[in-house]
Amino acid sequence: MENYCFGVDVGGTTIKTGLFSMRGELLEKWEIPTRKREGGSLILDDIAQSLKEKMQLRSISTEAVSGIGLGVPGAVTPDGIVNKCINLGWGVLPVEKLLSEKMAGISVKAGNDANMAALGEYEAGAGKQYKSLVFVTIGTGVGGGIIVDGKPLTGSNGAAAEIGHLPVIYEEEETCNCGKKGCLEQAASATGIVRAASRLLELSAEPSGLRNAPYLSAKVIFDQAKSGDALARQVVEKTGWYLGIALAHAGCMIDPEAFIIGGGVSAAGEFLIDIIRKNYQANVFHASRGAQILLARLGNDAGMYGAAYLIINAQEAL
Amino acid sequence: MENYCFGVDVGGTTIKTGLFSMRGELLEKWEIPTRKREGGSLILDDIAQSLKEKMQLRSISTEAVSGIGLGVPGAVTPDGIVNKCINLGWGVLPVEKLLSEKMAGISVKAGNDANMAALGEYEAGAGKQYKSLVFVTIGTGVGGGIIVDGKPLTGSNGAAAEIGHLPVIYEEEETCNCGKKGCLEQAASATGIVRAASRLLELSAEPSGLRNAPYLSAKVIFDQAKSGDALARQVVEKTGWYLGIALAHAGCMIDPEAFIIGGGVSAAGEFLIDIIRKNYQANVFHASRGAQILLARLGNDAGMYGAAYLIINAQEAL
Repeated sequence: MENYCFGVDVGGTTIKTGLFSMRGELLEKWEIPTRKREGGSLILDDIAQSLKEKMQLRSISTEAVSGIGLGVPGAVTPDGIVNKCINLGWGVLPVEKLLSEKMAGISVKAGNDANMAALGEYEAGAGKQYKSLVFVTIGTGVGGGIIVDGKPLTGSNGAAAEIGHLPVIYEEEETCNCGKKGCLEQAASATGIVRAASRLLELSAEPSGLRNAPYLSAKVIFDQAKSGDALARQVVEKTGWYLGIALAHAGCMIDPEAFIIGGGVSAAGEFLIDIIRKNYQANVFHASRGAQILLARLGNDAGMYGAAYLIINAQEAL
Repeated sequence: MENYCFGVDVGGTTIKTGLFSMRGELLEKWEIPTRKREGGSLILDDIAQSLKEKMQLRSISTEAVSGIGLGVPGAVTPDGIVNKCINLGWGVLPVEKLLSEKMAGISVKAGNDANMAALGEYEAGAGKQYKSLVFVTIGTGVGGGIIVDGKPLTGSNGAAAEIGHLPVIYEEEETCNCGKKGCLEQAASATGIVRAASRLLELSAEPSGLRNAPYLSAKVIFDQAKSGDALARQVVEKTGWYLGIALAHAGCMIDPEAFIIGGGVSAAGEFLIDIIRKNYQANVFHASRGAQILLARLGNDAGMYGAAYLIINAQEAL
């Protein structure tokens, strides 16, 4: 009998779901909207209904589903308790137990979404040939995941690999969303990059293509930098410096075989990777200088791949 | 039949050795000098002779020794190859195999000395009640070890937990022993603290008890700071700031239950810990703010305890 698992990646706007074979093949993927009202209390019901519909459609029995992997945007303790997902309205919630009950007892394993994306890239993406990696996703915010010996490093409070909150900016005066000051996210997220450009445009009288742009975005800034705009280039160099310093910290601590860079900002491609690499190599301990720095490959699917592999790897460990 | 193991901590000047029961009791400890001449080629012979003498004296048979744990001042790959110990004159050396051959086939496991000290504190010292910890030893240099789920994080090149080389000083112009600039070690080692005080004494005309000290040492500077000397206090505050930032980086990355601070400089005690804690809490991600920051307990014995536990834990895993 063929066995299956589901990988579910719960985001702030959509829930991405994949049906996988236990060999890790993605058989089908689909999305449903994330209904955040009523304190997010509808989300698990919506997931359960969506999975049950798919099982019915494909005539998959409960027994044929080895498990459901669940990535959520928040910390998850080793025993499957979510400890606040502000984006979803969740407080402290035993998600594994709750979803399992709604799914006729099918086993559920949950993890932090960035850790799941890291595991996805490790098992099925850019990290496939490496034994350890540090994944950094640069989008509206900056998130991270660390995989050592095939397992996400979760931390004692489910808060390991909070790479977006490494304290890298020493002179920062504004407060990060997390409540402290000087986080990597403030310098290197899409928002942070736009902020840095706006500041520089205000402080300097230097001519720049950015002054004529209808609006500022990380993409506009990278495009200008690539086409030789000096001011845009300065912004990108500074962003890459902070990312390089952050990766060097991760390198000194974890000494991984590879770094995988994903998220919307990574669309800037090798242009960004080269600047990060230069600053990483100048600042990491010499023994770790050879670590690969690579672009992520799975895009928005990374999280559901990783969630599915939580189930596949647990099965293989038996 | 009682079973034994040895924990051996190879330092630049002495080799500290302990005979342990397999329940982790230290039965006897002793030291021999580290003979570094001839490219360190005498060291493993000296260790073997010392262990054999002890076994003869106590009538311990080869069969009664479960293994020898070996801490060395350098990187060790997962398969027991030392990758340069500059302090000992060693190049690339398969130490596990070599020492085992000299010891009639007794199993040998090697690890980095700072990782071994971390494991020692975890199993038998200040970290006993915690599941994960980050250990920082502050002496002539700054070293570190990370323990997660009872195991040292070794890294893909044996260079994880190189906490002394976290790139925390942005304006540094001198080069660290490791070849790059701005390492934590340059700010927070005993040498770094003295350097910071000397610089400040030169730059400022402020009166300070340090000006009358017959010589500057980390101890003299901490003692002056404790007794209210403003300039010494300024040096100590800056040291504690860099250590707090470094621990915050480790906190965001590893999210451990505890940090253990050891090494000669940790003799400054709770006075130093309080300053580190203040800066840690201000700079780490909120979920990790509650991690304990504690003084190490095993002093110079930590490394040999950890080396012995490499053997004890491997036995228990069978």
